[in-house]
Amino acid sequence: MTVLILTSEQDVTADMVVAELHLRSVPVMRLDPADVPGKAVLSADYAHGDFDGHLSVNGHVLSMGGLRSVWVRRPGEPAAHASDSSSWLTAETRQALYGMLYSAPTRWMNHPRNADQARYKLWQLRIAHLSGFAVPPTAFTTAPRVAQQFAEEYRDVVVKSASGPPPGDPASALPTTLIGPGADFSTVAAGPALLQRYVPKRADIRLTCVGPRLFGARKRSAPGQVDGRYGDTGYAWETTAVPDRIAKSVQEYLALSGLAYAAFDFAEDEDGLWWFLECNQAGQFGFVELETGQPIAEAVALWLAGRTGERRVPESRG
Amino acid sequence: MTVLILTSEQDVTADMVVAELHLRSVPVMRLDPADVPGKAVLSADYAHGDFDGHLSVNGHVLSMGGLRSVWVRRPGEPAAHASDSSSWLTAETRQALYGMLYSAPTRWMNHPRNADQARYKLWQLRIAHLSGFAVPPTAFTTAPRVAQQFAEEYRDVVVKSASGPPPGDPASALPTTLIGPGADFSTVAAGPALLQRYVPKRADIRLTCVGPRLFGARKRSAPGQVDGRYGDTGYAWETTAVPDRIAKSVQEYLALSGLAYAAFDFAEDEDGLWWFLECNQAGQFGFVELETGQPIAEAVALWLAGRTGERRVPESRG
Repeated sequence: MTVLILTSEQDVTADMVVAELHLRSVPVMRLDPADVPGKAVLSADYAHGDFDGHLSVNGHVLSMGGLRSVWVRRPGEPAAHASDSSSWLTAETRQALYGMLYSAPTRWMNHPRNADQARYKLWQLRIAHLSGFAVPPTAFTTAPRVAQQFAEEYRDVVVKSASGPPPGDPASALPTTLIGPGADFSTVAAGPALLQRYVPKRADIRLTCVGPRLFGARKRSAPGQVDGRYGDTGYAWETTAVPDRIAKSVQEYLALSGLAYAAFDFAEDEDGLWWFLECNQAGQFGFVELETGQPIAEAVALWLAGRTGERRVPESRG
Repeated sequence: MTVLILTSEQDVTADMVVAELHLRSVPVMRLDPADVPGKAVLSADYAHGDFDGHLSVNGHVLSMGGLRSVWVRRPGEPAAHASDSSSWLTAETRQALYGMLYSAPTRWMNHPRNADQARYKLWQLRIAHLSGFAVPPTAFTTAPRVAQQFAEEYRDVVVKSASGPPPGDPASALPTTLIGPGADFSTVAAGPALLQRYVPKRADIRLTCVGPRLFGARKRSAPGQVDGRYGDTGYAWETTAVPDRIAKSVQEYLALSGLAYAAFDFAEDEDGLWWFLECNQAGQFGFVELETGQPIAEAVALWLAGRTGERRVPESRG
């Protein structure tokens, strides 16, 4: 039974997980969908009343019946490396590759269907609320009057991008910007603004979840710092215990969203309360593992191998 | 409680359903996501411990709590009509609009999450097989040898596109093409080929499903005709009874795929057996209604209104 990793060629994080799988002699196939067709050959068929499918990369053949799990890490666009690439060839190749994989009886980290939904920020907040997390008041609006009223009610408010930072202009490329009620909200009519009550915080929390295993990391905030995930703050990520209430909410969130892997960001306020900021289903973990020594790559490998029970070292939450 | 229809301005099929909803005094809001931001204003917020959201179009305001159902008919790309449209603005607006709608407790025809998955042809065949339909032998491959063997085994084979006809060259724009084992399969290595055993047929079947209601339509095939859905065949679509076995499989398919609306295409062979060809979750029904007089628009309206029990006339299956 083989683990399939969908990612591009240059991916150090995938390398870490592949090394852990090799250590345990778990067969792995690494595939960049950009290499189909070409380096990789696929065949799926329904014949004689049954389905079958095969992927072949560098002479190694993987049958869909022998697929242990799929890790959707950082896959390229199907057929992107084809000599005669086109949007039609990409669409056909996506149909062939993902159609075959979706038909296989396997485990996913994360299934694209669940990953797609999990990217919607408003949906995240709703699921977070249902899961029992503390969620800061938030508005997402194209109405200047609503934005203005929100800023007046909550005073210190941050503006965020829901889909990632805007391209181009460096001045608007800050991931999170603090504004006051005196700001000019007229431009909201031209593009939706995501506003959130600013949480004065003493630390950023990154909680990495691999199936049932939780890895809590904490980084003290520099005074006046709005978004501690970016830039050098003078503090490092350190392992931190995960409160039971949070652990319970995390399992609820994962169940509601169908995710096997997720990286949660929280703001820890002056009272020690963790405020839900976002949940990134494809959040990086390499930097956390590097700074804290938490065995996250190993946990991913064990989940993919179907051995979530194995543990090398005790983690933050016993 | 209002029905929300996501579609572009020019959409005669949506007009038919809107007319049926008006007849029954069911409030309707019609929105093209391309008109957000601009003609349409949206606001979603999480404040005071609860979620709320509003859509405003032409002075009409729809609260998410008053959302009866959503019909994803033929929506434009979010922000496509904005004066400063960009891929970033589209991404942000998609986050705001669909994030709000996904968080609303409402019924969907069809939820984009289910619609996306339902587009994968191989997945369709697998679900069709699991649902008990007769599925013609099929291969989807980038291996010329596999394609060659498939054609040799089944002799008369059709080549299809999984994602729609290729752009450009009119010669390759046929939706379905009959080939024999003597064909040159070497190009399969450059782009996946979807091959299917040709079903010699006496009729095409279009089965339109609106929740639990089934509308069977049949069009006799012209001799030697491969794909009867396109072009003038000299025959018209006529209402046909839906066999119980098919009706049972349809309900199973809809349950497995989470679809409220689906248009199935079958080939009826010389023995009267219906072979599953595909299931289009967004398949047109206007042409069927026009030729057969089946009240499909009314059925869609009743489903959206939450009144699936009401019927104007008896339909093919009592």
